Amino acid sequence: MVEISVKVAVNGYGTIGKRIADAILKTGDFKLIGVSKYSFDYSAILAVKKGIKIFVPREKIEEFRSNGVEPEGTIDYLIEEAELIYDASPGKQGVKNKELYLKHGKFAVFQGGEPPEVAEVSYSTLCNYTSAIGRKYVRVVSCNTTGILRILCSLNIKPTSVFVTIVRRASDPREDTRGPVNSILLDSYTIPSHHARDVKTVIGEIPVTTASVVVPTTLMHVQVFQLNIDQSIQLDDLVEQLGKSNRVVFVDPYYTDIDTTGKILELARDAGRTRNDVYENIVFTSTLYKQGGSISFIQAIHQESIVIPENIDVAYAMLNLETDVFRVLEKTNSALGVGLIKDLISMVGK
Amino acid sequence: MVEISVKVAVNGYGTIGKRIADAILKTGDFKLIGVSKYSFDYSAILAVKKGIKIFVPREKIEEFRSNGVEPEGTIDYLIEEAELIYDASPGKQGVKNKELYLKHGKFAVFQGGEPPEVAEVSYSTLCNYTSAIGRKYVRVVSCNTTGILRILCSLNIKPTSVFVTIVRRASDPREDTRGPVNSILLDSYTIPSHHARDVKTVIGEIPVTTASVVVPTTLMHVQVFQLNIDQSIQLDDLVEQLGKSNRVVFVDPYYTDIDTTGKILELARDAGRTRNDVYENIVFTSTLYKQGGSISFIQAIHQESIVIPENIDVAYAMLNLETDVFRVLEKTNSALGVGLIKDLISMVGK
Repeated sequence: MVEISVKVAVNGYGTIGKRIADAILKTGDFKLIGVSKYSFDYSAILAVKKGIKIFVPREKIEEFRSNGVEPEGTIDYLIEEAELIYDASPGKQGVKNKELYLKHGKFAVFQGGEPPEVAEVSYSTLCNYTSAIGRKYVRVVSCNTTGILRILCSLNIKPTSVFVTIVRRASDPREDTRGPVNSILLDSYTIPSHHARDVKTVIGEIPVTTASVVVPTTLMHVQVFQLNIDQSIQLDDLVEQLGKSNRVVFVDPYYTDIDTTGKILELARDAGRTRNDVYENIVFTSTLYKQGGSISFIQAIHQESIVIPENIDVAYAMLNLETDVFRVLEKTNSALGVGLIKDLISMVGK
Repeated sequence: MVEISVKVAVNGYGTIGKRIADAILKTGDFKLIGVSKYSFDYSAILAVKKGIKIFVPREKIEEFRSNGVEPEGTIDYLIEEAELIYDASPGKQGVKNKELYLKHGKFAVFQGGEPPEVAEVSYSTLCNYTSAIGRKYVRVVSCNTTGILRILCSLNIKPTSVFVTIVRRASDPREDTRGPVNSILLDSYTIPSHHARDVKTVIGEIPVTTASVVVPTTLMHVQVFQLNIDQSIQLDDLVEQLGKSNRVVFVDPYYTDIDTTGKILELARDAGRTRNDVYENIVFTSTLYKQGGSISFIQAIHQESIVIPENIDVAYAMLNLETDVFRVLEKTNSALGVGLIKDLISMVGK
């Protein structure tokens, strides 16, 4: 057996970067050689305590040292050493960072906050794993888009049209000063919102419309999903198709009392998930409704962590380590414990 | 000219009751002979200061007196004296109160929190004014249902189907202990939510589906509306049809900066509306979207006051004072200043 251990780096250590780094540490196939940080904060100390090496801009070395963190080297050096870089910088910064990756000729995974043009392919595992095989630059789409695409690409039959109303969380838990506080805000002034365009960067052939409002919560997004689809599809078929990747999990509020985003996160906390992360789309089964050729349901999406499995999957494709998407799903799910929430849900019925 | 001045009473002086009482005081056609209160609180003092007479249960007379409010008499006496009673009691209490109205043979208007069976007709002005003419017991449907029905019944062409996602406020401003605080809650565990059933109590012929979630705000509900309708309807036609009653007002976020429920209420406050009430559906024009035979948009509904105009309208029907719904709309709109928000909006463009 050949041991695969590809050297990867994470550039940016915020909401997404720290989660990708932790996920990499859980895989056997990739070796995290370090993460970059651009300014000192407590997360640098926590990273060092975990054994993660920190790389910083040359002019910041003193700042980190004076705070008790000895950088391993410069960011330029980190990029040079890595075979694949996860760009987890704030939105639009990835485009600028790309010059560095180009200079060193490295593979790079970008996040959904970047424009699609940054990459050769916009990506979501269940939709287009194979089109990322061997690619040097791939963009993993954002949280709401990932939530939508997992549904659409799990189906055996393409819907004729889709409408998703997104009820977005206002901020992540740590973003204390973002609002709204007591208002419902138009996320996009138009229908469709930008999410529909983002879906189309991955699958162009299904007409998807999205409407999005922002509400004063920090925990998860909620999506009211409507599929216009072949009338022969029954709800049981749908549940079976959606469930087969383990990336979509079904929760019945009647039997579990789980009827809010808060209660979903409580389950993740009780399950021992790091940072209460929920990698799975959580579909409320009792909302599943079929009328003629129209199927609707409500699902919740954990904005901070939903894209992490796809970020791991994509490395297998880009580096040409695996051509079979189902084996990749198995590997990533197993590394991250993605089956766990599903198993727990099946046990918490009243 | 015959002077009409029908004696009306308001039974229950909470969120809806106090607003109906104030609205009655603004009409020339109805005389408010008093309101009932079942336990003392500061609103009794405010009512007396406005010249509104208070009626209380016999056993509560002392309680009110000791708080400095001299009741005018008992609730039974109030009902006896009135020709028409607005039942504005907490949900499901109206059914019990009906015995009193039956005993005295009085007309009664019930609110949407009561089961439809309490009344002969479930009512929304733009849909079925004439079916309330001469009726003794009519139920004015609830806030979200009123918001939906105003749209559907303003249209010249019936949609083939309708889907509304409701993003509900968690509580009214004074309901300090209602949640959720930082969660998105399934309002109904099922699609359709109860709102679809309530719409059908007024108009049965259009298939309406509703999905509803609750979010941590106090100000207004928001509805994402989808109409499947004759392809020939253009957005301009739709705006014209919806606007003709003045009960639906269009706001363009691009030109007014009004893109949240909070900013809508700020406009109502600046406009001098009592309690910042917004009697109108507020449709965000920039969200209007037509794709083939499907039209969607986002609107906001002020849960505390949206039903007040319909409560006034219905009295003209029940007491057979007016058969022409357009003249009724004119009267009520004029009494409540319903045109004002529309006029202001047209002036606040950048």
